[in-house]
Amino acid sequence: MTVEIIAVGTEILLGNIVNTNAAYLAEKCAELGLSCYHQDVVGDNEERLMETIRLALTRADIILLSGGLGPTQDDLTKEAAAKVMGKTLYLHEPSKEAIRQFFAERNLEITENNWKQAMVPEGAVVVENPGGTAPGIIIAENGKHVVLMPGPPGELIPMFEKSIMPYLAGLASGVIYSQTVKICGVGESKAESMVEDLVDAQSNPTIATYAKIGEVHLRVTATAPDEKEAKKLVKPMVKELKGRFGNHVYTTDSEVTLEKAVVDLLAANKLTACTVESCTGGMLSARLINVPGVSEVFKSGYVTYSNKSKRKLLGIKKNILMKHGAVSEQIAREMAKTAAALARTDVSVSTTGIAGPDGGTPEKPVGLVYIGCNVCGRVTVKECRFHGSREKIRESTVSAALSLLRECILQYYSEVTFGGKEK
Amino acid sequence: MTVEIIAVGTEILLGNIVNTNAAYLAEKCAELGLSCYHQDVVGDNEERLMETIRLALTRADIILLSGGLGPTQDDLTKEAAAKVMGKTLYLHEPSKEAIRQFFAERNLEITENNWKQAMVPEGAVVVENPGGTAPGIIIAENGKHVVLMPGPPGELIPMFEKSIMPYLAGLASGVIYSQTVKICGVGESKAESMVEDLVDAQSNPTIATYAKIGEVHLRVTATAPDEKEAKKLVKPMVKELKGRFGNHVYTTDSEVTLEKAVVDLLAANKLTACTVESCTGGMLSARLINVPGVSEVFKSGYVTYSNKSKRKLLGIKKNILMKHGAVSEQIAREMAKTAAALARTDVSVSTTGIAGPDGGTPEKPVGLVYIGCNVCGRVTVKECRFHGSREKIRESTVSAALSLLRECILQYYSEVTFGGKEK
Repeated sequence: MTVEIIAVGTEILLGNIVNTNAAYLAEKCAELGLSCYHQDVVGDNEERLMETIRLALTRADIILLSGGLGPTQDDLTKEAAAKVMGKTLYLHEPSKEAIRQFFAERNLEITENNWKQAMVPEGAVVVENPGGTAPGIIIAENGKHVVLMPGPPGELIPMFEKSIMPYLAGLASGVIYSQTVKICGVGESKAESMVEDLVDAQSNPTIATYAKIGEVHLRVTATAPDEKEAKKLVKPMVKELKGRFGNHVYTTDSEVTLEKAVVDLLAANKLTACTVESCTGGMLSARLINVPGVSEVFKSGYVTYSNKSKRKLLGIKKNILMKHGAVSEQIAREMAKTAAALARTDVSVSTTGIAGPDGGTPEKPVGLVYIGCNVCGRVTVKECRFHGSREKIRESTVSAALSLLRECILQYYSEVTFGGKEK
Repeated sequence: MTVEIIAVGTEILLGNIVNTNAAYLAEKCAELGLSCYHQDVVGDNEERLMETIRLALTRADIILLSGGLGPTQDDLTKEAAAKVMGKTLYLHEPSKEAIRQFFAERNLEITENNWKQAMVPEGAVVVENPGGTAPGIIIAENGKHVVLMPGPPGELIPMFEKSIMPYLAGLASGVIYSQTVKICGVGESKAESMVEDLVDAQSNPTIATYAKIGEVHLRVTATAPDEKEAKKLVKPMVKELKGRFGNHVYTTDSEVTLEKAVVDLLAANKLTACTVESCTGGMLSARLINVPGVSEVFKSGYVTYSNKSKRKLLGIKKNILMKHGAVSEQIAREMAKTAAALARTDVSVSTTGIAGPDGGTPEKPVGLVYIGCNVCGRVTVKECRFHGSREKIRESTVSAALSLLRECILQYYSEVTFGGKEK
C-alpha cells in the first residue's frame, strides 16, 4: 500500500519550523512496509488544502495529515478533509468531555472556540489525544484512509504510536518486525563495508544502516504472516551482526541510548563516575543526566574551561600546562586523574580539545581532541580528529567519550577476570 | 512572485534525513518577500519528478529544487527538469574543469560518471559550487525560473547565499530589509498582547512574532525601492518595540544569542562567573561555552546532581538539605553562594529542579525549578514552573537562568549607580 504525508501549516511554509513530523512519519511508514512517493506541505488555506488532499487521493491509499486541528479560525484541516470526503461535522460528545476535563485539570478557562475541536466528520474513527485537546481522526472510505493528527510532535508522536500505527499495521498485509543493533566505536564507512555482503544479499529480513554522531545503527526488518514468524527471521541476522561487531554492539534494544548503556554498565559494576570537561563544557554530563536513575552512579561534574580553573579547581601544575598546552595527551590524563580523586569516584572521563572555529594551529588543528578515561586508577587517553562545525566537533567528542568509557570498563573487567587481578 | 520548493531524494521519503533544506529555503524566500504556498518531496524517480515539476510550474513562478544532482544513475533532477523545459544537455567545459580541479586538489581519482555533473541544459545559467562538484543551474523561460541546487546543506547554503539569493532578489521588486528585536523574561502570550495593536495596524513594515524557549523574537520587515528607504521604515518600529519592552530587549542584532548577550554583559562589567547545576546537569555551562571568547569571563562549572556532591563539593550542610529538600529556594541560594566562593568568581548561577518524568510530588511537582543568581554577594532566587518533557523543562531552565542572570546584573548596576553604592 502507498502513503502520502501532508504537513499543514503556514509556519512550515515560512521556514519558521522544520518539518520533523514528515521525517518521523516517513520513518514509521517505512518500518510498516508502506511505500511513500510524495510528501507535501501546504498552508492553512482551505482551497489549497482541499486541492492537495484531492491530488494525494489519486496517488496514495493512505493520507497522513498533521497540523491544522487547533481551535482557531485558521485551523482548517478537518473542515477541508471532511469537504473532500463529502462528510458533515457533528459534535462528538466524548471529545467534548475530554476537552472539558483537560481544561479542568489545568485550572484553565475554556473559551467558546475550544468546542470546535470536538466537531468530527460523520462515520470517522475518533482517536484519543492524551497530550492535548484535538482528537485524531480517521476517515476510511472506498479503500482510502485519511488520517488527521495534531501538529505538535509532543501530541502527534504518542498518538501515532498508540493508535495510528496499529491501525496502519492492520491495513498492511502481514506483520513487520524490526530490531536495531546499535554500534559504537566503529566508523560509518567501516561498518557499511562490514555488512556489505549481507546488504547485497538481503531480501527478508532487510538491513538498513543509519549513521548517527559517533554511532551506527543497523536496523533488521522482516515481514511475515505473524509476529512469531517475523521474529524468527530477524533473530539469526541480529546474531550474525552481533558476531561481526562483537563488543562494539552496545545494545539491541531500540529504547537504549549510548548514555544509558554506559550508565547501566557503571551500575552493573557498582562504579561511581564523574566528568571533567574542557571543550565539551558540560555537554557530556548533560547527556549522562538524560538517563533516569543516573544519580546512583554519577556523582559530580566539573567544567574546567579555562587554564586557571584547571589549575585552581583540579590542582594541575602550571608547568605541565605550559609545557604541553591545555589540549594535550598529558592534560587529558591529569584531568581524569585529579577529578576522580577530587570527586572520590571509581571512574572519571575528561575532554580537552579545539572545537573551533578559531584557535587551531598547524600542530594542533581545529578538531583535535583528547579524551581521558580513568577506570579504577588505570588511565587511557585517546587522540581524536573530528571534522565539521564547533557544535559537531563537541557532539562527536561527547559520543566518543561515552564510547571510550564503555570500552575501558569492558577492557578493565576482562583483564581483571582473565588476569586474576582484583579491583 | 510565488515560489515552490521541491526537495528530491528517496532518503527524505524514507525518513532517514529531515528536510532542513526546505526550512532554510522557505525562510530565505520569506525574507525576499516571495510567497510560498507549496513544498514537495519526491524521490529519485524520473516520471514522478517530471510530474512534480510540471505541477509546480502551474502554481508558482520560481521552482527551487534541491538534491539529485550527484554523479550516479539515481540522480535524475537535472535530466527531469531539462525534459520538462524541453532542453537538451551539453558538456559545459568550465564545469568539467572545475570538477577536474576539485578532484586534483584532493588527490582523488575521477571516475567516468563524474563528468555527468558537467552536463547542463542549453541556455541555462550555470552557478559555481565552491563546496562540491555539482554546479547549480537556473533555467529561465516564459517568466518561469527553475533553479537546481545540490542536496547537501554544506553545498546548498553557500551556493544559495552567494548566487541564488541575489538572482531571486533581482526578480523581486524592490528591497526587503529585516531587523529582529530579541526579548527575554517575557512570556509569549504577554509579548503578543503587548504588540497586538501594532500587528493589527501593520502594513509596511510588518511584524512577525517567533516564540523560542524562554525567548520571543519580533522580526520587523520593510519593503522599499532601495535599502536606505527600507531601513528608514524599520527604524521607528524597532524604536517603538524597544520602548515597550525596555530592559527585556537583549539585542537587535540577529547574530547575537541570549548566551552571547550575557557573556558580553559580564565582560563589559569585568565580572567573572561560574555555574552550579543540578537539574540542568551541564546544559547551562555548555550553552555559555558556545560563545567564542567566553573564557575571559567563565571560570568553572560544577555539576552537583546528587545530594552527596552538593555536600561534598559545595559543603552544603546535611541538615539544610534534609530540612528543605534539594529542590528548594534555600538550596538554590546555598548553591549560588558556595559555588562563587569556591570558584572565586563575582557571579554564580545555580539550578535545582524536578525535570521529570518521575520524582514529582503534589507539593513539588515535575517542572518546579529554583534558579539562584549571585551577583557580587547579592543572591536572588526565582521559583519557576515549567511544562513539557524532561528535555523541555531543562531547556526552559537554562534560558530562564540566562535571563535571570542578565536581569540581576542590570539591576545590581542600576542600584549601584542610582543608590550611590559601590561594587
